[in-house]
Amino acid sequence: MNTMQAAVWHGRQDVRLETVPRPAAPATGWVQVRVHWCGICGSDLHEYLAGPVFIPVDAPHPLTGAQGRCILGHEFCGEIVAVGEGVEGLAPGQRVAADACQHCGECADCREGRYNLCERLAFTGLMNDGAFAEFVNVPANIVYALPDGFPSEAGALIEPLAVGMHAVRKAGRVAGRSVVVVGAGTIGLCTLMCAKAEGAARIIVLEMSEARKAKAREVGADVVLDPSECDAIAEIQALTDGRGAKLAFECIGHKDTAKLAIDTVRKAGRVVMVGIFEEPSAYNFFELVASEKELVGSLAYSGEFADVIRLIDQGALDVAPLITGRITLPEIIDKGFEELVHRKDQNVKIIVQPAA
Amino acid sequence: MNTMQAAVWHGRQDVRLETVPRPAAPATGWVQVRVHWCGICGSDLHEYLAGPVFIPVDAPHPLTGAQGRCILGHEFCGEIVAVGEGVEGLAPGQRVAADACQHCGECADCREGRYNLCERLAFTGLMNDGAFAEFVNVPANIVYALPDGFPSEAGALIEPLAVGMHAVRKAGRVAGRSVVVVGAGTIGLCTLMCAKAEGAARIIVLEMSEARKAKAREVGADVVLDPSECDAIAEIQALTDGRGAKLAFECIGHKDTAKLAIDTVRKAGRVVMVGIFEEPSAYNFFELVASEKELVGSLAYSGEFADVIRLIDQGALDVAPLITGRITLPEIIDKGFEELVHRKDQNVKIIVQPAA
Repeated sequence: MNTMQAAVWHGRQDVRLETVPRPAAPATGWVQVRVHWCGICGSDLHEYLAGPVFIPVDAPHPLTGAQGRCILGHEFCGEIVAVGEGVEGLAPGQRVAADACQHCGECADCREGRYNLCERLAFTGLMNDGAFAEFVNVPANIVYALPDGFPSEAGALIEPLAVGMHAVRKAGRVAGRSVVVVGAGTIGLCTLMCAKAEGAARIIVLEMSEARKAKAREVGADVVLDPSECDAIAEIQALTDGRGAKLAFECIGHKDTAKLAIDTVRKAGRVVMVGIFEEPSAYNFFELVASEKELVGSLAYSGEFADVIRLIDQGALDVAPLITGRITLPEIIDKGFEELVHRKDQNVKIIVQPAA
Repeated sequence: MNTMQAAVWHGRQDVRLETVPRPAAPATGWVQVRVHWCGICGSDLHEYLAGPVFIPVDAPHPLTGAQGRCILGHEFCGEIVAVGEGVEGLAPGQRVAADACQHCGECADCREGRYNLCERLAFTGLMNDGAFAEFVNVPANIVYALPDGFPSEAGALIEPLAVGMHAVRKAGRVAGRSVVVVGAGTIGLCTLMCAKAEGAARIIVLEMSEARKAKAREVGADVVLDPSECDAIAEIQALTDGRGAKLAFECIGHKDTAKLAIDTVRKAGRVVMVGIFEEPSAYNFFELVASEKELVGSLAYSGEFADVIRLIDQGALDVAPLITGRITLPEIIDKGFEELVHRKDQNVKIIVQPAA
């Protein structure tokens, strides 16, 4: 079987289900995975609706050489079917999930342990062929074995949860602290779940969509506030001895929600920025000076797959509420992308089963 | 002698040299200081030119009750002439400098050691009578003894240097690291001196005024770049293996220099905001997300007087280049404020000797 089905991005509004060659035998240090489940990410949708955003089209990607067409999909799990030379500790039959941050291993940030900031970072499914396909090749150094009994569907949720866990790590200590999460989309929900799993004392979510408010409560929010219905900052202060939260996570990326997130924290509080902002915000940095607040950005993950796999395995993270749809690869456009476009608020994660 | 001379703020462009009552005997926990030298701060000038900025006029200050008129001056040293009840370890004749952050000691931030963020912070010389006078009363808990042999003039420079040292502490470890200081005004110079004293490997200053560039070199800048004459970001990257500096300090407070400072640091670098920004900046927070840079504000100081006094005493901080004028109190308007207005670039710190 030298061909397979795949969802291939060719251009804006032009993702095609095609029969393509199966990937070649994995190179040295790489493995080939038969995909079990792959979740649809907001970035997939963004490439579908408004791409190219991250897909390289003008020049080959410096690490992978990818350019133009690309098999989408990076939130996946599956089983190893082949290993390249030099791969240790992984063998065919092993169930795995793979971190999407393919990296050079040589640049200063890679050497200092921040491979998510690699100068030649190649995100699987955007800058190299991804996992909306029956098979995908990935570097073994970002592949994580799944324990026996690990629920297969949950494997597709490890990636967005790792984004949330990385944000939580950027916050420093969360245990026992009051935490605000601005926005209850997928990443907001994943961040709140990870903050809760790490012992946050009280999690306050800001959200305006009714469906998302309900979902936030379902996955563990202690308080859900709607900034369109109340003075959210005043409510947060009332809940925190008049001070504001110790930590906040901005998980929307709208120009006005950056300041909102900063305003939710107390003096010397810390705000982790996770949202993908498209527009500049108007912000007076004197507010930081006068309050000694801290801001830090959080991008993807670097190693948090291990923590998330352990927490799911231990039952500390329950992914079931996050899965709002299960479809097959031939359904990815109509029941995947278009469903997410038209019923965005009703969905969190739709997962796709590539193999027939 | 129950009266004294003082420089009293009455309103914008209305600072008067007046004969006023000498402060009463110090209250419990307070001391009275005979002022030896007091430096003119940018904030004094700001109150003179454009006040009230920080001086409370509409309501009494919640900690001190001050309202309206105020004796300016907070960068001072002198000798104790009287101590209130309950003051231990300080006695008449002791030379001292005093931190200007009068604080309540009761609010959450005070209890957590951040008295500079006290909810009722009363800055000496703005929210309570200050030290452009022969005598000033201050709380003993923010008074620091000066060692024998400590140069008297240097006592007036401890306060701005403590601002710089607090910013350096906010940066985390500076030893061995490349550091950018944006702006070589008084606070920029003080920050660069403190970063150098703390072992920064290389200090790069961004400045456009020729006089300030020269002063930055005099106090220890390794490289001075003029953003109006070169591509400062490209130059910094060339000096730092193509990466950018590890740390930067924004010491100007202009809406465009916030982003400039952020752009000078490498991925995961840290920027300390010290400038007093008057206008909002346009900033796309995705730049923080994608680079995982950290921003933190730094306000005044909380305890750094001790470090600065020790470093001056040891010779690790040489304040001589910072003192560009020595005047007497009757000269404060013409040779102080007006000199700073008209020859801003040629001056760093003008210090005032209140007693005849």
